[in-house]
Amino acid sequence: MKYDFPVTRTTTPKAKPDPDTLRFGVDFTDHMFIMDYEEGKGWIDGRIVPYGPLTLDPAAVVFHYAQEMFEGLKAYKTADGKVQLFRPDMNAKRTNRTNNRLCIPQIDEDLYVEAIKALVRVDADWIPQKEGTSLYIRPFIIADEPFLGVRRANHYKFIIILSPVGPYYVGGLAPTKIYVEDKYVRATDGGTGEAKCGGNYAASLKAQEEAHEKGYEQILWLDGVQRKYVEEIGTSNAFFVIDNEVITAPLDGTILPGITRDSVIALLKKEGYKITERKLSIDEVVQAHKDGKFQEMFASGTAAVISPVGELCYKGDKMVINEGKIGPIAQKMYDTIYGIQTGTVEDTLGWTVPVE
Amino acid sequence: MKYDFPVTRTTTPKAKPDPDTLRFGVDFTDHMFIMDYEEGKGWIDGRIVPYGPLTLDPAAVVFHYAQEMFEGLKAYKTADGKVQLFRPDMNAKRTNRTNNRLCIPQIDEDLYVEAIKALVRVDADWIPQKEGTSLYIRPFIIADEPFLGVRRANHYKFIIILSPVGPYYVGGLAPTKIYVEDKYVRATDGGTGEAKCGGNYAASLKAQEEAHEKGYEQILWLDGVQRKYVEEIGTSNAFFVIDNEVITAPLDGTILPGITRDSVIALLKKEGYKITERKLSIDEVVQAHKDGKFQEMFASGTAAVISPVGELCYKGDKMVINEGKIGPIAQKMYDTIYGIQTGTVEDTLGWTVPVE
Repeated sequence: MKYDFPVTRTTTPKAKPDPDTLRFGVDFTDHMFIMDYEEGKGWIDGRIVPYGPLTLDPAAVVFHYAQEMFEGLKAYKTADGKVQLFRPDMNAKRTNRTNNRLCIPQIDEDLYVEAIKALVRVDADWIPQKEGTSLYIRPFIIADEPFLGVRRANHYKFIIILSPVGPYYVGGLAPTKIYVEDKYVRATDGGTGEAKCGGNYAASLKAQEEAHEKGYEQILWLDGVQRKYVEEIGTSNAFFVIDNEVITAPLDGTILPGITRDSVIALLKKEGYKITERKLSIDEVVQAHKDGKFQEMFASGTAAVISPVGELCYKGDKMVINEGKIGPIAQKMYDTIYGIQTGTVEDTLGWTVPVE
Repeated sequence: MKYDFPVTRTTTPKAKPDPDTLRFGVDFTDHMFIMDYEEGKGWIDGRIVPYGPLTLDPAAVVFHYAQEMFEGLKAYKTADGKVQLFRPDMNAKRTNRTNNRLCIPQIDEDLYVEAIKALVRVDADWIPQKEGTSLYIRPFIIADEPFLGVRRANHYKFIIILSPVGPYYVGGLAPTKIYVEDKYVRATDGGTGEAKCGGNYAASLKAQEEAHEKGYEQILWLDGVQRKYVEEIGTSNAFFVIDNEVITAPLDGTILPGITRDSVIALLKKEGYKITERKLSIDEVVQAHKDGKFQEMFASGTAAVISPVGELCYKGDKMVINEGKIGPIAQKMYDTIYGIQTGTVEDTLGWTVPVE
């Protein structure tokens, strides 16, 4: 093995949660990966240790200036017991793009993927196999140098934790109701919209709560300059099917470059669909609905894979999409991607990575 | 006393730093204040304990989604040995406004100020008295519930730490060189610009570093929609004196409502200056410089109080302001505010709060 991370095994293994009642992101496995960054030494001491609390100075930069980033991916166990990851190289690449925006040091992408594999190997018994479940992998980086001036930190921790998860939405593939947000803004050109950093998520909570109060599960963000062009759905990428064209927002700085988004685009192209990355105004969506041409809408993301949208509300007007049911393209994308991830659909694109 | 926070005193007091070589935010006192929030119980168990590391689950929300906020204020020791704070009620109010935007529970503002006083009382020996030094007070809140779904946390910690500090800028009141940022954006309407949350600061590091590489100490942010109107200087508010009018950006959602900003406005009004909160385009600044009417520019903030600007660079063109020297209004504001804070200027506005 190229990397030989020392492993300290727990002496008090935890009971594994019931796979029938798994929730998202509340149970954690027995071990975690930690690696430190020290200015002048680089990333050092990658190691696997028992899952347990972090001890940080109260002046650590992460608590004050949110110099932090995270990623999310999943490990699956196939019917014949093999463990595999889905496109982990994409998470490593995106980490470095986020790090660049947040002034966090770059990480070797090969080491990054090998660290994930090494940890998943140690806790492989935790991967649930029930339909719709998986082992969620959360790599994240925090600046832990203690000082209160505003500048990039000189010390960081890169940590990976694992969580056996059920469906992200309690309703599973049931279509969601989405509120078009026209007050709060998620991202703007020149900001951090394309980075996977904590600040983006803290900023989104208020809009999400206000949508919940109105009876909607999530929000559709509009662009920060004109409040005109559709951007993302909550923390996922957004896809619209209008007049047989599948449309998603282009990666022009405010959109998170989703790995599921990339996979959907690649699969649709391969299957011959008309798929376009372009600016789409909410007015065009409304007009298409009036004309009976708004066929489907869905969100794509690692947590839920594909989440169909059954209703969209813009300025009080409600648009029911595909009679409130999951559409054929959303269903096909879910079946294909989840099938590749779990080994029931052939991986012709070389996306899965085995964990031996 | 209305609040009786239990105090656990350190048994290993630290040596105090040399007041002649104090830096900003690297030394911390012997104690800190901690209070927990539990959903259903509210803010509980306010206590003063020895300064020391926090122990948090690696899945704590603050590490992933940056649900966190902070404040900054200072305690000063007057020539006759009295300890006083500067407008701490304003920090308490701003905390609650930030908390509202970040979905963090509200804190009783009276309790907030009393907690600061109680901690400063315990570590009063740490307040330096040399010219330009003070005890910097950093209240902050972090979401420490461990879970990976994106929603508001149900558990938080409110913490106050203290740091004896020297001048924020090594040069003290020496005029700074500022770069007008036209690529990165700090805040946009509908975002978190008026909240004092970590995400805003992480997002600003990259622009600050690129300005440093070009030889500038700080950046002047422009608005996120048109890149036209001046907003803030780094992490401070910005004031411009043009043709005898003092101008600062209005509090319309993207600007941090600075307490020093508010104090400067109140003092200038009281002294009869023409002070206007209005949108000011960078083009108007450039034109005023050409016309010989751009008289002064300075930043206001808790850390540096007043920081004069001697040079402004916009799209490669350099504008020297007031021959690169501190202007009369900046000097007067520094002398007055720092004087009130340290007890050498009469506090006719009732801004100082004694810590008995």
